[in-house]
Order: sequence, then C-alpha cells, then structure tokens
Amino acid sequence: MTTVYQRVVFVAVIATALSSLSVAANNKDAKLTGLLHNEDCTDFFYNAIIPEGNAGDVIDRYVDVIADAGVTVLLCNVNARRTNYRSNVWEAFWDGYDPEKGESDPFLTPIAPELRKAYARLLGNMHEVHRQGVDYPARVIERCRQRRMSPWISLRMNDVHYNDNLKHPFHSDLWRKPELFRQGHVGYYARALDFKHAQVRDHYRALIVEVLERYDVDGLELDFMREPYLFSKGEEVDGSKILTTWLRDIRGFIDQASKRRGHPIKLGVRVPSEPRTALGLGLDAPTWSKDRLVDLLVATPRWETMHFDIPLAEWRRLLGNRVTLAGGLEVRYCHYPGSPVEYRNAECAAGAAVAVLSQGADVVYLFNHFQNGDWPEPGYKRLLNAMSSLDKLKKLPRRHAVTFRQVHVPGEAYRAPLPVTRQAISFHLPLGPLPPDGWKANAVIEVTNKDAKATRLFINGIECPLQDTKALPKGHQQLTYSTPNSALPGRNEDTIIVTASGQMAITVFRVEVRLHPGS
Amino acid sequence: MTTVYQRVVFVAVIATALSSLSVAANNKDAKLTGLLHNEDCTDFFYNAIIPEGNAGDVIDRYVDVIADAGVTVLLCNVNARRTNYRSNVWEAFWDGYDPEKGESDPFLTPIAPELRKAYARLLGNMHEVHRQGVDYPARVIERCRQRRMSPWISLRMNDVHYNDNLKHPFHSDLWRKPELFRQGHVGYYARALDFKHAQVRDHYRALIVEVLERYDVDGLELDFMREPYLFSKGEEVDGSKILTTWLRDIRGFIDQASKRRGHPIKLGVRVPSEPRTALGLGLDAPTWSKDRLVDLLVATPRWETMHFDIPLAEWRRLLGNRVTLAGGLEVRYCHYPGSPVEYRNAECAAGAAVAVLSQGADVVYLFNHFQNGDWPEPGYKRLLNAMSSLDKLKKLPRRHAVTFRQVHVPGEAYRAPLPVTRQAISFHLPLGPLPPDGWKANAVIEVTNKDAKATRLFINGIECPLQDTKALPKGHQQLTYSTPNSALPGRNEDTIIVTASGQMAITVFRVEVRLHPGS
Repeated sequence: MTTVYQRVVFVAVIATALSSLSVAANNKDAKLTGLLHNEDCTDFFYNAIIPEGNAGDVIDRYVDVIADAGVTVLLCNVNARRTNYRSNVWEAFWDGYDPEKGESDPFLTPIAPELRKAYARLLGNMHEVHRQGVDYPARVIERCRQRRMSPWISLRMNDVHYNDNLKHPFHSDLWRKPELFRQGHVGYYARALDFKHAQVRDHYRALIVEVLERYDVDGLELDFMREPYLFSKGEEVDGSKILTTWLRDIRGFIDQASKRRGHPIKLGVRVPSEPRTALGLGLDAPTWSKDRLVDLLVATPRWETMHFDIPLAEWRRLLGNRVTLAGGLEVRYCHYPGSPVEYRNAECAAGAAVAVLSQGADVVYLFNHFQNGDWPEPGYKRLLNAMSSLDKLKKLPRRHAVTFRQVHVPGEAYRAPLPVTRQAISFHLPLGPLPPDGWKANAVIEVTNKDAKATRLFINGIECPLQDTKALPKGHQQLTYSTPNSALPGRNEDTIIVTASGQMAITVFRVEVRLHPGS
Repeated sequence: MTTVYQRVVFVAVIATALSSLSVAANNKDAKLTGLLHNEDCTDFFYNAIIPEGNAGDVIDRYVDVIADAGVTVLLCNVNARRTNYRSNVWEAFWDGYDPEKGESDPFLTPIAPELRKAYARLLGNMHEVHRQGVDYPARVIERCRQRRMSPWISLRMNDVHYNDNLKHPFHSDLWRKPELFRQGHVGYYARALDFKHAQVRDHYRALIVEVLERYDVDGLELDFMREPYLFSKGEEVDGSKILTTWLRDIRGFIDQASKRRGHPIKLGVRVPSEPRTALGLGLDAPTWSKDRLVDLLVATPRWETMHFDIPLAEWRRLLGNRVTLAGGLEVRYCHYPGSPVEYRNAECAAGAAVAVLSQGADVVYLFNHFQNGDWPEPGYKRLLNAMSSLDKLKKLPRRHAVTFRQVHVPGEAYRAPLPVTRQAISFHLPLGPLPPDGWKANAVIEVTNKDAKATRLFINGIECPLQDTKALPKGHQQLTYSTPNSALPGRNEDTIIVTASGQMAITVFRVEVRLHPGS
C-alpha cells in the first residue's frame, strides 16, 4: 500500500542531496515534511525596532529564530485588508499615513486613543522598511532560502478585524461597500465579504497574480480561516461551486507561475477542523483535492481554543494520500466558551501536536505562535524543534483536553461539550501513543465543591483512583485522578467516563489527561 | 440550499403524472424514493411450485406480494456463479443437469445427500420456467412495470457460496481456476475471484452487456457485498484504481443502453456499511460518486447481523447530494460474533429502518427479506409498507441495539463492541426520533448473574432505574431498565453508559433500547 509514496519520498531525498534545495521545491508530488509555521502580516512590525539602513538584517534575525526553532516551511502572510508590502493592486497598510505626524496623524483618529500608539508603530515600521528599499516578503523569502526553509506566501481570504469600525485605517476601500457584505448575519462576521460577487473574487485574484509574479515561493496558501464565512446565509452550497470554479482559475495561475519559475509551486488552504463544518460553509476541500487543485490542506481550529481531536483520519479518507494533510495548532486553550484561558501552555501545545501526528496528519501547522510573545525564546525553540517528530514529542510532558469548536455553520445547533451536568458522561479523547516507561498519567477534572466527593472517573473502562483535590475560585475544585498504565493502550481510541457515585447529577467544567515524568 | 433539488422533484412529479411511469424511469437526476428490495436469484426457485403452462402467473404472484408490501424499486438478482436465466455468455444454474433424473443425476453427486433434494428443486424450477418459454427476469420486469415498481437487475460481483467444494454444480468453469483466486487469504473468502485479472473483469462485463441488451430496466446494481473481497491481500489500493477504470467502461455501457432505450438507466453499488471498510477493500465509492459513475449507493452490513448505526451522515459528506443513498437491512440480529441469533425480528427491522431514515439516507434497502421465510405474510407486508416513511415507522414498536461489523479490511485489528468487561463502558447508539406520546422506553442489557446487582445504566447522562430481571441460560441475566422520556432527546446522538456500582469490572453481552406502546 505504501510503495508509491515511499518511491516518491526516496526520489525526493536523492534530489535534495544533489541540489541542496528543499524537498518541497523540487518534487511536484512530494509531500511537505517537518514543521509549518504561519507568520502573520503584523507581528514583526508591531514589535520590531528598525534602525536606519538596517531593516533587512532585522528581518533576517526574525526569520532566523524561526529557522532555529526547526520550522521547515515558513508561510509568510502579507495581507489582511491591506498589504504589508508596496502592492500595485491593493492598498498598503500605510497608504494615507504620514509617519512624520505619527500618532497625531488624523488618519489614526478613528482608532481608540489607547490603541493609537501601537498602530502608529505598526504603520511606521512597515513604512520604514519600505522606505529603506526593502521588500519585506522578498527579504523573508531570501532568508528562508539561505536557512533551507521552504518559503510560502499566505493570504488571508476574508479578514474581519475592526469591522465594527469601518472608518478604521485597517480597511481599504473595498471593505467599506455594504453591497459587498455577506447577508443574513449580525456580529463579528456580518461585514465579511461575500465571494458571490465577482468584484470580491477579482480583488483577491489580483493579489494572487501579483504575489505569484513578484515572489519566488514554493507555495501559496489561501487562508480561509481568516475568515471562513465567505457567503451569505443559506448560499453556502451555491457558493461552494463558485469558489471551486474560481479556485480552478487560481490553480491555473499557480501552474503558469510554476512553469515560469522552473520549479513546482504548491497551493494550500486552511479550513475548519471538521469536514462537515468546512463543507457546510462552502469550502469543498474534498473536491479541491480530488480535482488536484490543492496540494496542502490545513485542518485547524479557529483562535479561541486549540483542538485535541481534529478528525484527521476522516480528512485523510476524504482527501486521499496525495495531499499533504496538516493539523493546526492555536495558542489558546479554553475548556469551554468563556472559560479562563491558558495561553501558550507548552504541555497543551505538545499534546495537541501529538494528537495531530498520531492521528494521520503529515505535519503540524503553527498559527499565532509568535516568537515575541509570552513564550520565552529557549522554551519556544525547544518545543518547536520537537514538533517535526512524534518520537521527540513523546518525550515532552503533554496534556490532552476536551475543548470546543468555535466555527459553526450558520443555523447549526452546536453545544460545547463542557460544562455539562449529568449523572454520567463520556468523552472520546485521543490520548496519543504510550508515554515513556516510568511516566505518570493523571486525569484532571473540575467540578463544584458539592460534587467533589461524589464523582468517579474511568479511562477506557478502568477506574482511576482520586489522588488529589485542589480548591479553585468560585466554589470549584480540581480533582486529580491517578491513571493506571493499563488504562492507556496507546491506540488513540480513548474514552473518559465521569459518573456521579450517588443519585445526583454532577457538573463537569474541565476534562484533561496529563502525561509527565514526575511523581 | 434545496431549491435545485426541489425543482428536480417538482419536474419529476409532473412527468409522472403525465406518463404514469415511475420517477426513476423519467428523470435522470431524480433520486430513488420509497423502498428498495433485493430479490435474490434463488429464493423463488427454491420455494415455488410451477404448474404446467403457468410459470408466468406464479412469477407474477410472487412479484405482487412485493408490490403489495410497498416496495417501489425491485432489484432482481439474476446470478451468483451462474445465471438463473438462459444466458448466452454465462452458464445457467441448470446447465449440465437432467431434470428427468432429478436427485439421482450424477451432476448433483458432489452435493451432500441431505442437501441434494432442495438443490434439485432449485434447478428443476429454473429449468421448468425456461422450458415453458418464460424468461424469468423479463417476466419480473414486466410485472414490475404493471405494478408501478421500478425494475432493476442486481448482479452479485463475487459470490463465494460452496467455495470449499469446487466440484459443487453451483460453480461454473471460471471459478475452478486457482490462478484466478485472490491470494493471501484462507477461509470462506480464499477462493473469491481476483479482479486484477482481465479475464475476471471481462467475464462480468459480458454479463453486464448481456443484461443491458436484453432487459429494459431502470437501473443496474453491482452487488459488491457478495462479496466485497475482490483483490489479493495488500493489493486493494492498486485494485481500486483498476476497478474504477473498469467501472468507467461499465458506465459507458449504461449510458449507451439508456440512449438506446430512450430513458435514463441508473447504476448502483452495494458496499460495506463504513466508508473506511469500503475504501480499504478497494471500493472507492467517493470517487465513483464524484465522477458521476454511480447514482445509487447502498451502505450495508453483511449477512451476520444488521447494523443500527450505519454512518450515513459520513457517507453523505463523502458522496454529496446527487447520489441516492440507501441504508441496508439484513434479517439477522446478533449482538456479538457467535451470539444467539434473532431472525426476522420485526422490532429490530423497524429500529434499523428508523436509524437509516433518520440519519440521512434517502431510502431503506432490504436484502434477504424473503416473503417465503419465517415471516408470516400479513406482518411482512405491514412492516414493509411502513419502511418508506419515517412517520409510519415511528408508530411501530422498535429496537435499537449494539451489534458488530462482519466485514474487515485484511490485516485490520477489529474488536467487536460486545462482549466487554470493564468497570465502565459507553456506547454511541443513535436511538432515532422521539417515540409517540405515552410510549415507554426500556434499556435492556445482558450480564452474568454475579454482575446483575452491581450494574448501573445511564442514557444521555440520566440514570435509568432497574425495572426487571430475567434469568437467561448459562448463568446470565437480562436486566431491563426504565428509561425516562427526558433521556431521549430524539437527536440521534445518544450515548448509553453502563458502569459497575462497585469496584469490580462487569461483563456486558447485550445492549438494546426498546421503544413500545405498552406499559
């Protein structure tokens, strides 16, 4: 069953040895390997200090941190509602801004005063890089080549930041036209663009054509997770046909660019974790794969929380083996909508990555994993360097947790798994491969004080004795159960059952399993 | 979302009104509706009494029972390893048999003596129908048209009955050639034909061409569930490509026949319940659907037990909305491999049909539901007449049960859900829509005597009080729990949890939910 694939990989390895170029760049059908990292269009510019005449070096150092972290494919995002480079077809972020005036520029007046300084710095840095004659994406790509990373461009296909304030300088002209907004929604996504309009599709097409013309990349990603709401309510099925037809044109541009450049260029898409959600929103990835329109599919949660159970085996069945299948990691862990957030928790990241690689994805894909965040650099590099390999990941402490899905199909009646009040409740949660010998496993749940003494927990049919309790705010308790090794068969088909020991229903707020070397 | 489909249905209704022909016969893209019934190639001939000069009437009466039972599409199976009609390209069942000699014909010598009489009757009846100048499939088709049923031919694509006895007159020459057998298996399926051989594919193609030439049907079904093992072990992926290419030719014949006949002819396939099983065996139904090669997909268990949880929603996502999706019913209910069998249990049939229609299939498909069996005719007709409609089915007592999967991908490590020994165990079992007001629901499980007093049962998180116990053979007990209405939300996402009330693991042999009007 694997001979064809093995042959492709073998050829790829030979080619790499001969040319010192990346696998992705040389072999049309080779899958991506290693670790994929999406670098958004603003983080560098929000944080960088750009000395006179030195913008290129600052960019290089930024890319170097990513390379040193073991990233093999850097997906450089260059747009939201404007571009972070001097585009000829889209407005740039800084168009209309006068850096001499800084924060006092009337251009920034629509921004809340407390946020103006940061935005001025963002625009100032973008402008400064450009003023120094440095083309940011080109420089990132060049440094990627030097550091043996495969460079991609990633385009956000429907970013909606600040859409409650249409005067915000974040928007370009097109986003201020109500006739282009998708219909039938209120709230955050109400003013996303409706891709049924040719004007919208043409706007993105122009950007795609420009980046393919201008930048020598190994791949182009269309990021439909910023945002996945592309059509008016009820028009998703018709919309999916429009989008697939449009994507066929885009594939044509990719293939032309590939011919022009003399090397393969891949097309990737980011879509919601669950096939049914993607399909319900008009993102017909199975057809895109079947028709060989896309080479990379990233199945991923959206911002609010990471997922530990992306249905990657189902995706694989839908997509076949040709496409590189990536599982996406977000940086937030929430156990239920509105719950306290754990941000950049290394154990959660390791657990989510183990779930991705042990359930049939080819690679892990990182989103919003910024080097300048709350994550100290050495730990960041150590963690990311493990993410190319299940063997390395298995040696890190990790957590698997029940979370929820933020992206819904319009009209869908979705209920998050937690919190839940029941006399008995079961959770399917893949716990990944067996931990190293001598490691401990703990199940951790959160309940109310009244339920703390009336709760039993079973993993894969084996009761886990209560080991520890800890008081939490709001009259909650954290219960830690000792999980016998026999309860972890390492087959990723794990079931956690929580029951009331008496007749009263209990309320469960959090469910996790933690694997760690300590006692 | 539904406008296109609604338009098709509307056109279909008009066309039916104008022509008095069935929907299926008139509209290329109309889905099948009603109830589909597969009539195997032997049941009529095993049981019929054929008076001189009257074969046609006897066939008509047989078809009439099916029509009166509310069947809308009759799939007439005409072959196993021979044909039940006078084929020009395959041997007929009776070729080589001398009806004058009857049971004493040396042709029957390879058959065990106690089985010879029945087989002689089978062959004698087939021969007699032919001798009277009646073409059985043609007569069935004609009577279907008179009774406003849509006639199909169904072909078994790899029947393996009696393959442990290659001298059995059931086999034709092709099946006695070891070089055509699939490799890498022992047991019942070891001597199935390997479709990698052009000789095998050509043999079936000849039969397909003949039936399309000879019989004016609305559809042709390729029954890959007799049997789904078409390739040597490890060659399923390559095999699937061969099969899809071959199927493309067959679709061509279908389309030619359709043109010749002046009405649409559909192509259907029967495949295993679960997409992953079908794909793993080389039956790439998603591609067949995508490439518009097939119009009907029947997802179905094999013989040993019916399924109450065919993943029809997953099938729908894989196939899209164009294809008619049917869920298959078998006549046996087994709770675990080797368990006692309940045969033709009307409550189980109703439950399985409810599961099919409430989970996204268009229609129920009956296999081995013979009118001459242990099922008295009035009950048979009443039950079948309800199967076109979820509303009618809901008014019948029904059972939903945990069963198991008989068809495995070679090398797959499959474990049946029952029996199971655990301290706690959960089962996902769709229980269908809410029962009528005033109905009762009971969960029924089977455990050992020692566990009977130590078991708790929860449905959808609500504990069900023990209502009744009943002694069973072998030191087992049947426990009946009263299920509160609040535990049945009618959303088909039901979970049954069984736990030990103490510290000892319990063994569960059977899990069912029964819905009934009684107290």
